[in-house]
Amino acid sequence: MDILVQKYGGTSVGSVERIKNVARRIIRSKEKGYSVVVVVSAMSGETNRLIDLAQQVTAEPAKREMDMLVSTGEQVSIALLAIALQDMGHPAISMTAAQVGIRTDANFMNARIQHIDDKPMKAELKKGRIVIVAGFQGIDVGNNITTLGRGGSDTSAVALAAALKAKYCEIYTDVDGVYTADPNKVPDARMLREISYEEMLELASLGSKVLHSRSVEIAMNYNVVLHVRSSLNDNEGTLVVKETKEMEKIRISGVTSKTDEARVTIYDLDDKPGVAAAVFSELAASRINVDMIVQSSALEKTHTNRISFTVKKSDIKSVEGVVEKLRKAGTVNGKHLVDTKIGIVSIVGVGMKSHTGVASQLFAILAKNKINIEMISTSEIKISCVIAEDRVLDAVRAIHRDFGLGEGSVRSAAKPAAKKAAAQPAAKKKG
Amino acid sequence: MDILVQKYGGTSVGSVERIKNVARRIIRSKEKGYSVVVVVSAMSGETNRLIDLAQQVTAEPAKREMDMLVSTGEQVSIALLAIALQDMGHPAISMTAAQVGIRTDANFMNARIQHIDDKPMKAELKKGRIVIVAGFQGIDVGNNITTLGRGGSDTSAVALAAALKAKYCEIYTDVDGVYTADPNKVPDARMLREISYEEMLELASLGSKVLHSRSVEIAMNYNVVLHVRSSLNDNEGTLVVKETKEMEKIRISGVTSKTDEARVTIYDLDDKPGVAAAVFSELAASRINVDMIVQSSALEKTHTNRISFTVKKSDIKSVEGVVEKLRKAGTVNGKHLVDTKIGIVSIVGVGMKSHTGVASQLFAILAKNKINIEMISTSEIKISCVIAEDRVLDAVRAIHRDFGLGEGSVRSAAKPAAKKAAAQPAAKKKG
Repeated sequence: MDILVQKYGGTSVGSVERIKNVARRIIRSKEKGYSVVVVVSAMSGETNRLIDLAQQVTAEPAKREMDMLVSTGEQVSIALLAIALQDMGHPAISMTAAQVGIRTDANFMNARIQHIDDKPMKAELKKGRIVIVAGFQGIDVGNNITTLGRGGSDTSAVALAAALKAKYCEIYTDVDGVYTADPNKVPDARMLREISYEEMLELASLGSKVLHSRSVEIAMNYNVVLHVRSSLNDNEGTLVVKETKEMEKIRISGVTSKTDEARVTIYDLDDKPGVAAAVFSELAASRINVDMIVQSSALEKTHTNRISFTVKKSDIKSVEGVVEKLRKAGTVNGKHLVDTKIGIVSIVGVGMKSHTGVASQLFAILAKNKINIEMISTSEIKISCVIAEDRVLDAVRAIHRDFGLGEGSVRSAAKPAAKKAAAQPAAKKKG
Repeated sequence: MDILVQKYGGTSVGSVERIKNVARRIIRSKEKGYSVVVVVSAMSGETNRLIDLAQQVTAEPAKREMDMLVSTGEQVSIALLAIALQDMGHPAISMTAAQVGIRTDANFMNARIQHIDDKPMKAELKKGRIVIVAGFQGIDVGNNITTLGRGGSDTSAVALAAALKAKYCEIYTDVDGVYTADPNKVPDARMLREISYEEMLELASLGSKVLHSRSVEIAMNYNVVLHVRSSLNDNEGTLVVKETKEMEKIRISGVTSKTDEARVTIYDLDDKPGVAAAVFSELAASRINVDMIVQSSALEKTHTNRISFTVKKSDIKSVEGVVEKLRKAGTVNGKHLVDTKIGIVSIVGVGMKSHTGVASQLFAILAKNKINIEMISTSEIKISCVIAEDRVLDAVRAIHRDFGLGEGSVRSAAKPAAKKAAAQPAAKKKG
C-alpha cells in the first residue's frame, strides 16, 4: 500500500474545530487507499505561550530545557488529532519523536535529523492505523529532546517521507500553492502546478514563506515528491519535483522580492589577497548572514577595491561593530556606507540555463520603467537586482507582465489530473 | 552523599514566581549537602485545561491519547524549574519518565509503577546536577506514555525515593502536616510530629487529602521515610515512619470524618451461602467502591439476613441499577432503603492494639452527646461509626476533646530536632 505523508501547520490545527476538519481530510486520504502518516505542528500561539513562560523566568533560558518545554506543544496537537480520528471511527496512534525514533544531533533549538527508524511507524501502519507524529522534534544520542529550528515541522515531514519512501509528502498550508508572484502584490499572479526542487530552493531562500529551504534540500536529496496544498480547500496545489525537460521550455517560473535587507558598502579596501576573506570571516564570526556580495574590479590608479553586500536590516548594528573591529585591525581604512532604503527583485527559473537573453530582457524591463539597478547577482537559475525600495512593487509588476507570467505561458504539471486542474482559473492566496 | 527526594504539587509550581520560590527551597537543601531529586506536578489548572481541550473534541477520548496529552503538563513544569535553577547558578536537568526509565503497566490513566531505573538519575547526580523529574507519568513496555491516576506525583516521588534509597522523601503541600483532626473543624487540632504508615494509610483512605494511599503503601513496603511539609513556610511537618514502641503509648492519633457517603440496606435476603457474594460481586462488576459493610445475624424465625453497606453518594444511581438487576435474578426479594443523610466518624491509632477499652470509650462519648450509632466497623487500628450527618461535627469535637487529642498528649517525633519543634505551638492549615 502506498504511503502518504501529510503535514499540517499550526494554523491548520489552531482550534478544536480545525483539528476536526484536519481529521476529516486525513480520513478522505485514508479512504482513497493510502497508508497515512501525519506530521503536525503545535496549535498556533502555543509555542509563543511556552516561550513567554520561559522568558518570565529568565531572559536567557538554557537551550536543552527550552526544547524540553516547547516540544510539549506538538505533543498536545498529536494527542488531540488522534482523539479526533478515533472518535470518527478511524484507528489512529500519536507518536513523539522519541517513540518514532527520530535521531538528531545535540544542537538544541536547531538540531539536524541524522536518522529515522521506519519500523515503529510501519508496524502501526500495518495494523491499519493512521500514524500521527509530532513535528519539529527529535532526540539526540543521550535521549534528550531536541527541536529542529525554523520550519522544523516541514523538515520532519519530508524526512519521514524519505525514510518511509512515501509516494507523496503533502504540505498543507494556508496558501493554495506556489505562485509566479505574491498574489497580494500582483493581482494576476498564477499558481504553478509544478516546480523543480532547485527553483523552490531559490524561492525559499528568496523569502517565499511556503516552505523552509532545509525541507526542500532533504526532498531534493531523497527524491521526495512534495505537494504544497491549502488546508482550507481541495484545490490541486503545487508539486515540487525533479527538474524535467518540459520545465526548461519555460524560461522563468516566478518573480519575488524582499525589502528586509540593507546594503553595506566598504570603500578603499587594499587590492591584495585575504582582504575579502578577513571581512567576511569577521561577519560570519558575529553570526551575520550575508546575502548578496558584489566586488568591483580594482581601480588601477589606487589599487583599492570596493565591496558591497546585503544583510538583514536587523543585523546592521552588529555589522557596524564588525566594521569598527576591522578598522582597528587596519583592514578597513576608507569610508563605509549603509543604505537601508533598498529592495531586491529576483527572477527564478530552470529555463534560464538553456534560454539566452533572460538577463538582458530583465535589465531592459527595469530600464524601460526607469528603475536603476544598484547591484546584480546571478546563479544558474536566478537573477537578483538591488533597486530602490520604493520601486520594488513597480518592478515586480513590470517583470511579471513583460515576461508574460500571468498569461498562461506558465508551466503546468504533466499528469492528466493536474492538467485538468490547471485549466481552471488559478485560486488566490487565502491566508 | 545522601539523596533527598522532594515533591512539589501543582499549587507550589502554579506560577513563574512560585516556581522561583521552589527553586530557592531546592537550593537550600542542596547546600545542606544532599543530592537532590525533585518531582513536580503540572502547574495548577494546566491538567484541567488539557482535559477540557480533549472534552471539546469528544466526551470519551481514548485513554492512551489522554495520557499523551496530559503528561505534557508535568513536562512544562520540569523544564521551567530546571531553567529557574540554572538561572540561579545551580546545574540542573529535567527528565521525563521515559528519560528516567519509570516503567509501568499499560493501564492508561491509572497505571502502576513496575520498575524504576536508578542509573540515569544517579549519573546526573554524580555530575553535581539537581535532577527534576516529571511526576504522574511513566512508560509501558511498548514505550507508550502512561499516567498514574489520582495522587500520581506523590506515588512517583515515593517510588523514586525507594529506587534511589533516599534518606527522606519530602512531600511539599499547602498544609503544614498531618493533624489530629481537620483544623478547620476542630480549632485546637494539633499537628502530629510522627505517624506510622498504617495510621497514615487509614487516614488517607478515610478522606484526609494530605497523601494518596498508594504512595503510603509504597513507602511502607520499601521503608521510605516520608516527610509531609508545607511549601509556604519552614515548619517541621510530619514524619511518616515505621511503627515504633513509643507510638503505642498513645492510644489514638487522630479523628476524621466524611459525609460524602450514603448507606444502602437490603432486607430479607435468604440466609444461605453465596447471597452476600452475589450482591457484592455485582456491585464490583459495576465498578462501585463499597466502603463499610455490616451484616446482621440471621433471624431464626424467617431465615433471612439484612445487609447494610456504604458507597459514595455519587454512586447511588448505579447501586439502584444493580439492585434492580438482583431483583430480576431473584437474589433480592425484600425492600431496600437508601439513606443519604449519614456521616462516618473514625478514630485511628496503633495504640489501640495494646490499649483495651478504646471502643467502649468512643461509644460512651457518643452516647453522652446523644449521638446514635447506626453502623460500626473496626480494623486493628481504626474504629468507624456511621451516625447522622448533622451530628458529625459535634461528634468529631467531642471525640477530639474527650480523648485529649488537643492537650499535649499527642505523640511527638523521637528526634531531638523534632521534639523542639513539637514544643512550639502547632501551626494551622494554610490552604
